[in-house]
Amino acid sequence: MAVIPPYLMFLGDAADQLAAKTAAGVVHWRPELCVGQLRLRGCNADLGIPDMSIEEAVAKGVKTLIVGVANRGGVMSQTWIDVLVDALEHGLDIASGLHSRLIEVPMIEETAAKYGRHLTDVRHPTRTFSVGSGKKRSGKRLIPVGTDCSIGKMYTALALEQEMSAQGIKATFRATGQTGIFIAGDGVSVDAVISDFISGAVEWLAPDNDPDHWDLIEGQGSLFHASYAGVSLGLLHGAQADALVLCHEPTRSHMRGLPDYPIPGIAECIAANEKAARLTNPSAKCIGIAINTHALSKEEANDYMLSLEKEFALPVVDPVKTGVGRLLENLP
Amino acid sequence: MAVIPPYLMFLGDAADQLAAKTAAGVVHWRPELCVGQLRLRGCNADLGIPDMSIEEAVAKGVKTLIVGVANRGGVMSQTWIDVLVDALEHGLDIASGLHSRLIEVPMIEETAAKYGRHLTDVRHPTRTFSVGSGKKRSGKRLIPVGTDCSIGKMYTALALEQEMSAQGIKATFRATGQTGIFIAGDGVSVDAVISDFISGAVEWLAPDNDPDHWDLIEGQGSLFHASYAGVSLGLLHGAQADALVLCHEPTRSHMRGLPDYPIPGIAECIAANEKAARLTNPSAKCIGIAINTHALSKEEANDYMLSLEKEFALPVVDPVKTGVGRLLENLP
Repeated sequence: MAVIPPYLMFLGDAADQLAAKTAAGVVHWRPELCVGQLRLRGCNADLGIPDMSIEEAVAKGVKTLIVGVANRGGVMSQTWIDVLVDALEHGLDIASGLHSRLIEVPMIEETAAKYGRHLTDVRHPTRTFSVGSGKKRSGKRLIPVGTDCSIGKMYTALALEQEMSAQGIKATFRATGQTGIFIAGDGVSVDAVISDFISGAVEWLAPDNDPDHWDLIEGQGSLFHASYAGVSLGLLHGAQADALVLCHEPTRSHMRGLPDYPIPGIAECIAANEKAARLTNPSAKCIGIAINTHALSKEEANDYMLSLEKEFALPVVDPVKTGVGRLLENLP
Repeated sequence: MAVIPPYLMFLGDAADQLAAKTAAGVVHWRPELCVGQLRLRGCNADLGIPDMSIEEAVAKGVKTLIVGVANRGGVMSQTWIDVLVDALEHGLDIASGLHSRLIEVPMIEETAAKYGRHLTDVRHPTRTFSVGSGKKRSGKRLIPVGTDCSIGKMYTALALEQEMSAQGIKATFRATGQTGIFIAGDGVSVDAVISDFISGAVEWLAPDNDPDHWDLIEGQGSLFHASYAGVSLGLLHGAQADALVLCHEPTRSHMRGLPDYPIPGIAECIAANEKAARLTNPSAKCIGIAINTHALSKEEANDYMLSLEKEFALPVVDPVKTGVGRLLENLP
């Protein structure tokens, strides 16, 4: 599932900035891959990169148009289809993070076939995987785990990759969700894999590597989320992680989408993830805590993080505000 | 995914009795649904029910031919295809537990379409499911869990259904694997569901029911199996079980298919399953232990089961040899 850069970011008629958060994530982490944005009438999102027509993008060497936006109502409008067909006719591939598949829109599918262009639906893995073997692989692996979904696991993994690379440590981000796949250029949308093959897909994604190489594997969901814990556990087992980082947002009152389910305690969440991870890597260990302190004042954030440092005797960071450098000091 | 009885059990050219174990399971638990068996030249399996041609089966009221056998090499031979086409032409539906899909064999697919016959590939769910909601449902639920795969979970659930029905307790077996689906006539092959929807599929399978009704949900895999634990956890969360039964085979030396992975201890396995189950049902409790003592002498089996009774203060049964009656005494 390779997506070839550089990219033209298609925002369509995104209702607001939130609808374009996938595209914004790609621009944040890989600005050098994102040559421009293409916005239609009524678009209320802005990635802060040059607006550009398809012709201009082609002239600037763009290879792939990225649909990194939620479409209104889940149905692709004719306006969108016209733009995507135009992109294919001008020689671009298309990669989409929509739930609906490009290949199921006849005009898009036919045009791509006619011009030999590539359509990639990153939410829908096309390859098959083996059942997980549980066999030890060479190289080192880290996976962020969370007290909940959407709590900073991808951000933490990418920040670690950046920091490790800056320090000359061999490191690769391994994407398991749509935004991550656009950022990495490939990966596996694990929540869309047939359930028998979750851990096998992750074994494939993060294969044998140099002994001093780190895979930073994007975490998904939470062992404590009643909807998605199966995905999280299969991912954790397939990762065979040496190191875990616990991600948490201190003001969240309940599990995302489940008003009756409280957020688990940090100690409980670390213990459960370490125990599960040790099935496939007996030396798995939580090496630090990453907090999203966005909703706290600077003082509150400092106090809170200090109190966690004391309680857990682990480095505590906010990847956005403090960076993740201190986590590296605690790597095994 | 409804499979309409009664059945003609197709054994093809099964190499041995083991290759026909799905069919044998259906005959064991639902002899009244299995009118006859159809065996080809070279078949070395025997279900102990009348051999029958397709014409005879139709005359006896059979509605569905069941392909409950592993085919050699995973490819369907022309001989098989001819028989299945003949069955469709004579008015039978076909339900298959093969990995390969009936619908992908052009002659079978075309014949079924021509005669309006139904093809069911029980390993491949055709309907879609919602993400699990974690919402409490009415009625009671029990799920057998295991120290490993293939350790008696389906057998235990079916034995419990039989015993409960005999005692006048409302009970329904809920199938999550291919043999179970043929036995129940419907169900969901959970290991073939897209991983995001595992718990949602089980919520659909075992919906709201009478307050005094028990769903006996077929367990899958093990929380301690490095290949399949994600499926087991999603299944456990979706089940919202009030009662668990721990299934174990005392002579097994390692996890099925994973020579480097030891079998977990019973205490550890009960604790991990209770803890996970309590996320979606805080009163979940292991109510007993089911042992497969097949490999032990009668004396060894008795001593072993007595020692477990003492250690865990729970009823311990061998569903095959002692029945499961004593488990019912400990239901919540």
